[in-house]
Amino acid sequence: MVFEFDKATQVRAIGDGAFAARVHDGWDIAGNANGGYLLAIVSAAMCAATGRSLPVAVSCHYLGPVNDADVVIETSVVKSGKIFATAHATVRAGDRVIIDAIGTCGEVLPSGEQRHATRGAPQMPSFAESAPRPSTSAGMPGLMRNVDVRLHPHDTGFARGEPSGDALVRGWCAFRDGRPIDALGLALMCDAFPPAIFNLSGAPGWVPTVQLSFYLRAIPAAGPVCAEFATNQLHDGMFEEDGLLWDSRGVLVAQSRQLALMPRQ
Amino acid sequence: MVFEFDKATQVRAIGDGAFAARVHDGWDIAGNANGGYLLAIVSAAMCAATGRSLPVAVSCHYLGPVNDADVVIETSVVKSGKIFATAHATVRAGDRVIIDAIGTCGEVLPSGEQRHATRGAPQMPSFAESAPRPSTSAGMPGLMRNVDVRLHPHDTGFARGEPSGDALVRGWCAFRDGRPIDALGLALMCDAFPPAIFNLSGAPGWVPTVQLSFYLRAIPAAGPVCAEFATNQLHDGMFEEDGLLWDSRGVLVAQSRQLALMPRQ
Repeated sequence: MVFEFDKATQVRAIGDGAFAARVHDGWDIAGNANGGYLLAIVSAAMCAATGRSLPVAVSCHYLGPVNDADVVIETSVVKSGKIFATAHATVRAGDRVIIDAIGTCGEVLPSGEQRHATRGAPQMPSFAESAPRPSTSAGMPGLMRNVDVRLHPHDTGFARGEPSGDALVRGWCAFRDGRPIDALGLALMCDAFPPAIFNLSGAPGWVPTVQLSFYLRAIPAAGPVCAEFATNQLHDGMFEEDGLLWDSRGVLVAQSRQLALMPRQ
Repeated sequence: MVFEFDKATQVRAIGDGAFAARVHDGWDIAGNANGGYLLAIVSAAMCAATGRSLPVAVSCHYLGPVNDADVVIETSVVKSGKIFATAHATVRAGDRVIIDAIGTCGEVLPSGEQRHATRGAPQMPSFAESAPRPSTSAGMPGLMRNVDVRLHPHDTGFARGEPSGDALVRGWCAFRDGRPIDALGLALMCDAFPPAIFNLSGAPGWVPTVQLSFYLRAIPAAGPVCAEFATNQLHDGMFEEDGLLWDSRGVLVAQSRQLALMPRQ
């Protein structure tokens, strides 16, 4: 079986470090390809460029929207070391620049005995018992055709005009076609949830991401991934959103942080 | 008066988007130039390349150590938009690559009325009443010749072999020569404190940063900056450290996040 996400994140080397890819429809938020989906495509290209299978730390600057379009990803390997290799990548659709990114990739993750965690996965109803992501007045994002996001009951208020007042969104996620969530899947999932600020004052529409950092923290076990997104500081039209993603064992498998802009009122 | 930090972060255009700079001694941790200092230099180059004065969101991947050396910073402007302009930069010392970075720069920060903060600056003794950063058995970092870091009394235990058990470091910072802390100064300060993990299990030595994100959240008012650094998730030899920096009015002026490696035991 070929999974949809694998089709939608294929990159094909076309020489000189460049890759051709197709930004598929069906992974969008209101007609713009989702930031996590684009992060997965550019991560796939940087892994291919460096010859390492894991995107360990990826920095992604979003420079223009795109959807349902062919793109070219120009990569250059900046350093190829023993533990990690690092590549720079620029994604263009025609002559429009979509993304500029740097990825530090590895073949295996580091190891070490010491452990410390100030928090674990949130208390959640099971995946089966959680509510499918509710539609908002703006409709259901196209992304939800491919991703099954199920929210914590406390965090669904934004969709019916009753934001919880906490800039917090927790839930489960999985691919609808049963594709296992690997490192590339985590890159998608770290931006697949409704913005946490929707629970602060309602869903104001499209919130453009300026920059997103993705850290792979462990290889996920089989099963859905549990995630928590929070915005702790919003002022002057900008806010950050921090994401934590745990696998079905409760192991922290990824972290994300993004800086985003409030929509102009 | 010419301040030391301005001398140490000068970049000189040498054509084709390249800049020459000198990584000065005296901004190092045990003989390696501090990550925040290098972030400031590369941010200065990206601001010069884009013609915008503020580094709003900078992603920095650290690829090799350097100190007391001439470097060349190759930049290319990826997009020049109305609100922001984005540049890619690679820093090399001879043929060794030191840093690969992307900076989204602006002339002014966005604006907006809505405010939300889950936390403010920590309760701290005043700058004058706070303890100067204590020396460790490994000695005082060279950086402290230029930066006056004063820690919260609770957070100094690591230096005498009595880590607090909380992966937390809070304190004040200022330039010793009285230079005001501007956006570039914040880039330095976001990595100028002892790692928060030192208070978990002692100071294990050099902790290499893989990637660091810096967000400028407001223009700082005059006076020292108050900062808090915390590590919330450490496992498999990697940890993140999140930094929050407030100005003397209590306004959040910068955020940082880094992924770092535990030293091999």
